[in-house]
Amino acid sequence: MSDSDWQKTTIDAAQAAEHPETAEAVAKIKALRQSIDNIDSAIIALLAERFKATLQVGVLKAGAGFAPEDVKREEYQIERLHRIATDAGLDPDIAEMYREFVVTEAKKRHQRIADAGGDPGILDVFA
Amino acid sequence: MSDSDWQKTTIDAAQAAEHPETAEAVAKIKALRQSIDNIDSAIIALLAERFKATLQVGVLKAGAGFAPEDVKREEYQIERLHRIATDAGLDPDIAEMYREFVVTEAKKRHQRIADAGGDPGILDVFA
Repeated sequence: MSDSDWQKTTIDAAQAAEHPETAEAVAKIKALRQSIDNIDSAIIALLAERFKATLQVGVLKAGAGFAPEDVKREEYQIERLHRIATDAGLDPDIAEMYREFVVTEAKKRHQRIADAGGDPGILDVFA
Repeated sequence: MSDSDWQKTTIDAAQAAEHPETAEAVAKIKALRQSIDNIDSAIIALLAERFKATLQVGVLKAGAGFAPEDVKREEYQIERLHRIATDAGLDPDIAEMYREFVVTEAKKRHQRIADAGGDPGILDVFA
């Protein structure tokens, strides 16, 4: 098997058995992937709770006539997430990408609630 | 204060006091924001652990000559995250955006490790 074939290869136990030198790497990758999957399960559960909370914020904002966007709140979040990412040993750029992802999505949903006159029903499919 | 002024307004306790009808909404939004901040702290800690794990996968893949990309693994993750998002009451579209964000970023980092001959030092600033 040439180098370029390997580059197209997925992690595969059968192929690894033919190449004992990579079998150990494959075993380690499988163990790490199980941890990654567990971490993803936890994060998905937390994202579900986060969007439940921002859905409520969206309804309250629409009811009170507040705009979906809040620049002061975003500045606070940028500073705070940068700080806790550094503490946690996470590249702050990744924390900022996370923030942009969740805040952008929450704002879009807030705008849709406001456009629907404060009715969250349009987003209620997963509530 | 006109409607359009409110639309530019951030949530502000002083302004809310002048408008008792919105004070309750502001108090509820503040409580929800504290929960959102706590959820973000937990997610940032989990993302730090996730990128530590994918950093190790990147080093193992580079050492074994595996490509950064793994289509079978991604198909598995797409199906799995869709399923657990639905179970958790999260819009599966958001789970897919999360997956694209973390997998794209992990692959970029795997490629950089492979380009550096398996040396994770280039990404070690936050390890």
